Amino acid sequence: MKKQLAPGALLAPVPVVLISCGTVEKPNVFTVAWAGTVCTHPPMISISVRPGRFSYPLIKESGEFVLNLPSASMARAVDLCGVKSGREVDKFALCGLTAVPAAGVNAPAVEECPVRFSCKVKSVTPLGTHDLFLAEIVSIEADEALFEENGRLALEKADLLAYSHGEYYTLGKKVGSFGFSVRKKKKRRKG
Amino acid sequence: MKKQLAPGALLAPVPVVLISCGTVEKPNVFTVAWAGTVCTHPPMISISVRPGRFSYPLIKESGEFVLNLPSASMARAVDLCGVKSGREVDKFALCGLTAVPAAGVNAPAVEECPVRFSCKVKSVTPLGTHDLFLAEIVSIEADEALFEENGRLALEKADLLAYSHGEYYTLGKKVGSFGFSVRKKKKRRKG
Repeated sequence: MKKQLAPGALLAPVPVVLISCGTVEKPNVFTVAWAGTVCTHPPMISISVRPGRFSYPLIKESGEFVLNLPSASMARAVDLCGVKSGREVDKFALCGLTAVPAAGVNAPAVEECPVRFSCKVKSVTPLGTHDLFLAEIVSIEADEALFEENGRLALEKADLLAYSHGEYYTLGKKVGSFGFSVRKKKKRRKG
Repeated sequence: MKKQLAPGALLAPVPVVLISCGTVEKPNVFTVAWAGTVCTHPPMISISVRPGRFSYPLIKESGEFVLNLPSASMARAVDLCGVKSGREVDKFALCGLTAVPAAGVNAPAVEECPVRFSCKVKSVTPLGTHDLFLAEIVSIEADEALFEENGRLALEKADLLAYSHGEYYTLGKKVGSFGFSVRKKKKRRKG
């Protein structure tokens, strides 16, 4: 039996990422959970940002940002960058984060994050509380330690964070990989 | 040290959901990992769908779909609904899923999923391989078993699935809740 709830932003789990913008000399960073992949080719992501956010005009005017994937060990910094405003505090300093150049954009990256996406804004759409930024991914950089000898990106080593109903989680057990339902059937037929 | 990668759809973890559409009598269902929350008020989500998908015209013409959150025990069905097409097979029958009416829309829901969102499409934007559907959530329904005595939705009991770099994962350890970085500081000051 199902129980009806008031409509709300309850989709879960969603990514929780650090968005860095501005410049390496004058950087800002904030946390976004309203982010998603929107297109495979060209590779595009979306982030939704409240117009009142300190970073909003920085992104809108420069047309650039870096989306940084934090690891679970950074959960405290991720939370802090979501509740504090760059208007009042230098969040890089507050959280012990380092602003570094990112490939392909002038916006800075968060060095401590194991994976980052350099993004160029393609459109901004007001939706209500949030404006939707659609952006093309122009470059991805990942920690060298995440790569296996054969060149495969072992993203599971990055210990990424997920966000679900107000809580931060690590990823747990792997329960399959894309196409496993069909691959296993084939094996059974052979056996 | 970072290593540069070709741009790609590598944002992770992302939700992996079952989208049901059509009617209860003639339902279809498919898997989407390119989904996200895009606005808090009004509550809106996005899903990206390839125009060649069997379900694409069903959603575009009806302007409705249901986004169903599967639990980890449904990983095989989730995968199968992503690799098979409704053109060739009745995926509800193939996966042992049940099409039921959903609140507020004519599109059917997947009864086995613990949480579902009834959605009405507001816009469709071609981006490349995928079209972006922005939709307003008009109703949410969740299993009665997920609610605690005080009425709180214990979403962690739903054992939701995440998708990361081609792999399906359960959620793991809770490492904090929104605002914990500030709350803990306050406690320390008091102590």
